[in-house]
Amino acid sequence: MDFIHQLCSAWDKNNSLLCVGLDPDFERLPTSIQGSDAPYFSFNKEIIDATADLVCAYKPNSAFYEARGATGIQELQLTCAYIQENYPFIPIILDFKRGDIGNTNQQYARFAFDYIGADAVTIQPWCGAESVQAFLDYKDKGIIVLVRTSNPGAKEFQDLEVNGEKLYISVAKNIRDDWNKNGNCLLVVGATYPNEMRKIRRLMGDGMIFLVPGLGVQGGDLKEVLKAGLNSSGSGLIINSSREVIFASKTNFAEAARAKAEELKNAINERRGSL
Amino acid sequence: MDFIHQLCSAWDKNNSLLCVGLDPDFERLPTSIQGSDAPYFSFNKEIIDATADLVCAYKPNSAFYEARGATGIQELQLTCAYIQENYPFIPIILDFKRGDIGNTNQQYARFAFDYIGADAVTIQPWCGAESVQAFLDYKDKGIIVLVRTSNPGAKEFQDLEVNGEKLYISVAKNIRDDWNKNGNCLLVVGATYPNEMRKIRRLMGDGMIFLVPGLGVQGGDLKEVLKAGLNSSGSGLIINSSREVIFASKTNFAEAARAKAEELKNAINERRGSL
Repeated sequence: MDFIHQLCSAWDKNNSLLCVGLDPDFERLPTSIQGSDAPYFSFNKEIIDATADLVCAYKPNSAFYEARGATGIQELQLTCAYIQENYPFIPIILDFKRGDIGNTNQQYARFAFDYIGADAVTIQPWCGAESVQAFLDYKDKGIIVLVRTSNPGAKEFQDLEVNGEKLYISVAKNIRDDWNKNGNCLLVVGATYPNEMRKIRRLMGDGMIFLVPGLGVQGGDLKEVLKAGLNSSGSGLIINSSREVIFASKTNFAEAARAKAEELKNAINERRGSL
Repeated sequence: MDFIHQLCSAWDKNNSLLCVGLDPDFERLPTSIQGSDAPYFSFNKEIIDATADLVCAYKPNSAFYEARGATGIQELQLTCAYIQENYPFIPIILDFKRGDIGNTNQQYARFAFDYIGADAVTIQPWCGAESVQAFLDYKDKGIIVLVRTSNPGAKEFQDLEVNGEKLYISVAKNIRDDWNKNGNCLLVVGATYPNEMRKIRRLMGDGMIFLVPGLGVQGGDLKEVLKAGLNSSGSGLIINSSREVIFASKTNFAEAARAKAEELKNAINERRGSL
């Protein structure tokens, strides 16, 4: 099954647009977990078991694993294998924001799809469509392009005016008109920019799916995101939460993560109905 | 010693602007090396021993190691440790083209500087200065920003007109005026775009150093690069060659790599003198 179909089926099965970001951070792990042989994998396993009926996707960010070197990368691979073995209906988004020239992107694609076993990846737009064809050619995988990022400084380049419109709009249009020939493109649109999200939704129509980071710690407002980003069927979003869920508590962390994920899932669903 | 000083001293010591890209590719390795326990590390060691008096820097591209998963990452780390132990005067540029939001870039910086032991990294501009502050704060490290990439599709966004100038110019100016407060920024400018390189050199003045990929297989012309990119002291460039050097031959590969590196180093120096 390709990524988009797997995602749609997970949306339905779990009745959830919530994605949990698996971004462990050694200093913030419970002491018992810090002492284990594979702390990130141990931590993730418990988070996954506690939330697998509440999410539409998991999104590990490669950076947190890389910071621990080769053993971290191994724990990332183990984490993804664990999801695939135990919850094969939940797609895995490897958030690695890569972007190089063509023959190098082939190597990054191997890492993501062959070694890690990801169903989708995030990528950079800066080098253009020609450079990322190596990713786009994986027709069954989701290729999620950074259009409007969630950070305060996103506007430095993304808001520059080109041909009477903002640069992020120009990027979104190119993806819609040119990059998406295999129908496997999605966009990153930060929760912290609901006005920009509204414009992008209008331009993209109902079919394009947005990955939405930036809720919680980063300050994005859920209600605003749903108003701005949902398509006319009340769907089309993968709403990510990382730290707010996985670090909800140091004691009974898995239970606390479940409670927070359930709260977010329900808050999203209530508002999807009432819009 | 900080990266810029280390680089200047390697330029002088080896009288060379040549950087060798350590981008091994399993299929292209000699059969004897393919059979070894750590093929990338074994291959790199021989390339390094054969070229260490001819280069100003080594530039491993992370993608090639990641494609082999955790063991590849380990071989990348071993490669860099080998350079540091045996040729401590040669700086290491980790070409990983990362770019995420601030707290995530901190993790990537840990990977590059603490785990791999790199002296410099390449990064993406798309999320703006605020997002990459985590890199810029490493005052002793070189932070090399993708301004004009070497690939044919670079123009899709990099050549868009903003405020009467091309976007890549706008990025270069922001780096010069705002990002470079610690004096540790450098720019990636592809060898395949000498006209653009000339414009960037004019804007940046003599002080800014360019990392130049795209010679050889990608089609960049050395003479054009030197005319366009050298500063008024006949310096200011890190001229990279990867495949052309490391895959110069399958038989006696280290010797062939040395011969090719020497040829490139000399070709650069001849033309530096005659400009």
